[in-house]
Amino acid sequence: MKAIVLRELGDVENLKLEEMPDPQPGSDEVVVRLKAAALNHRDVFIIQKLYPNIKLPAILGSDGAGVVESIGEAVDPAWLGREVVIEPGLDWGPDDHLQARGYRILGMPEDGTFAEKIRIPAANLHPKPPHLSFEEAAGLPLAGLTAFRSVSTRAKVQAGETVLVTGIGGGVALFAMQIARQLGARVIVTSSSDEKLEMAKKLGAEGGANYKNPDWGKEVVALSGGAGPDVIIDSAGGETLETAVKIIKPAGRIVFYGATTGLARNLDLYRFFFKQLTMMGTTMGSPREFASLVKMYTDAGLTPVIDHVFPLAEAPQAHRRMAQAGQFGKIVLKIE
Amino acid sequence: MKAIVLRELGDVENLKLEEMPDPQPGSDEVVVRLKAAALNHRDVFIIQKLYPNIKLPAILGSDGAGVVESIGEAVDPAWLGREVVIEPGLDWGPDDHLQARGYRILGMPEDGTFAEKIRIPAANLHPKPPHLSFEEAAGLPLAGLTAFRSVSTRAKVQAGETVLVTGIGGGVALFAMQIARQLGARVIVTSSSDEKLEMAKKLGAEGGANYKNPDWGKEVVALSGGAGPDVIIDSAGGETLETAVKIIKPAGRIVFYGATTGLARNLDLYRFFFKQLTMMGTTMGSPREFASLVKMYTDAGLTPVIDHVFPLAEAPQAHRRMAQAGQFGKIVLKIE
Repeated sequence: MKAIVLRELGDVENLKLEEMPDPQPGSDEVVVRLKAAALNHRDVFIIQKLYPNIKLPAILGSDGAGVVESIGEAVDPAWLGREVVIEPGLDWGPDDHLQARGYRILGMPEDGTFAEKIRIPAANLHPKPPHLSFEEAAGLPLAGLTAFRSVSTRAKVQAGETVLVTGIGGGVALFAMQIARQLGARVIVTSSSDEKLEMAKKLGAEGGANYKNPDWGKEVVALSGGAGPDVIIDSAGGETLETAVKIIKPAGRIVFYGATTGLARNLDLYRFFFKQLTMMGTTMGSPREFASLVKMYTDAGLTPVIDHVFPLAEAPQAHRRMAQAGQFGKIVLKIE
Repeated sequence: MKAIVLRELGDVENLKLEEMPDPQPGSDEVVVRLKAAALNHRDVFIIQKLYPNIKLPAILGSDGAGVVESIGEAVDPAWLGREVVIEPGLDWGPDDHLQARGYRILGMPEDGTFAEKIRIPAANLHPKPPHLSFEEAAGLPLAGLTAFRSVSTRAKVQAGETVLVTGIGGGVALFAMQIARQLGARVIVTSSSDEKLEMAKKLGAEGGANYKNPDWGKEVVALSGGAGPDVIIDSAGGETLETAVKIIKPAGRIVFYGATTGLARNLDLYRFFFKQLTMMGTTMGSPREFASLVKMYTDAGLTPVIDHVFPLAEAPQAHRRMAQAGQFGKIVLKIE
């Protein structure tokens, strides 16, 4: 099979299309013929050496959709030939609250989805939502899972609430907006790009604030009707979290799944307890949450937002686009 | 009636015993003949001008127990002559998650419990737990309520969990220890005083660490059996919260009701989300929580820890003791 192989860290140009041996399924495994894969920041961070314990050579990629091509002897034969989307986590463990110590994500150290074929446990198979193309379905897994856990499991967003999603355009943020709206919430967004704010409004955001404006927090309060959002979903950390504590409605919930701008040096703890706030950290999600995500997208007919589709061989260009953070939605690799 | 009146801020010596007019109950109010009152840091902070909007003259005091002496025409006559403990909050409002805007605590601007008599809404009356003396019952209200909300409502401590209570000796911390134990948890404590650690162990703490030792966090992890506590109840903020994020068990809950040492400038947000942590701010508690607190102390026969009982006239000495933070338990004023 052909695969994108990373043999050296440092630059996206090191992603090379190579001929690799075809994977073979173990007893409770399957091999999926991939039709599309999608990028995550994780892939860029690995290439940029920002993670510890990187093992090379590696086939990156956590997100994929395709057709089940072969199965191990312990696998239900009904899976053969089915169109599937792949759950990206391995060995989450029994506790929905927390990943087990051995939990990991497809794509380093296990071979990932930037390839024509992938070998995975049959337990990671989910039927592709029928209304989605392979490209759209491939965009769902890791970002959708992170957003689902943030919005549904952790924040427990309720119908009628107002949810602020910061940094719209990123994969998780767009899923968070869709999921919050599906749960009946009003969504406000922030971005450094007025163009992205307009695009988010076309997708259902009630309003947006450009965080280059130092008064963006006041804008959000005004957009929320004056009382501030009930819930804030963030991955910026730093001053964004500090502003979140100021503008959120009392008894509100802040959920963050990253801290890309660093630590929050001036988080107002006094306001935090007087306002009875809750702040939750979250990462990835459990198999049960992934199943709920796929069901929600299937039942409600939701469609992941796709930024751009590149052919597999153009993986370096795709990763450069992600590293430059100009995208609005998932960046996808189409695998012919 | 006699009352301790504050006519000038700045020093505990300004608390003067004076003759004041007897209060008269309104239609849905009662007058309680107080037998004991208890101090809170709030009283010291007011005297030290650390709060905004202080109105003088004031009768301070949020905690009290006594006997119902007279009632308004709309009050159930069964209350007359009953021994009661007083709920310290006024106008919490309908939402258990959050105090209403007009919420306030007895003792400035309303006259408080450092007096022979107090006028309160009948809704604030609760039968005194029969096994408690008036001095013990007077120690329960504000600190017990804050602890109950922290441990039960917010942290939702479960039987078998390990709870770290920092700064043992303070009123809220001791109630948090009792309530966590009553819910079936193991309790570990910290203090800057080995003597207080020993006293806490006699009251049921499984172990204690002196936070003057820079490795106190490691000590707590060892005392917890190696995995760290499930729950941390804190009011120090600052570096204590930073250590809390490091030592708490993954998926753990941190609840804080104060930040006496200031902001947490190096709160590790990366560890926070990777460990799936939750941090909750809390203050005071609702009428429903106060009723649950009194029920718990009544049903389980729990007794608030009393540090020292002063006569009402020695209110300045009592407040000096609190300001010096040497106490272990509640400081009480006995009212003859």
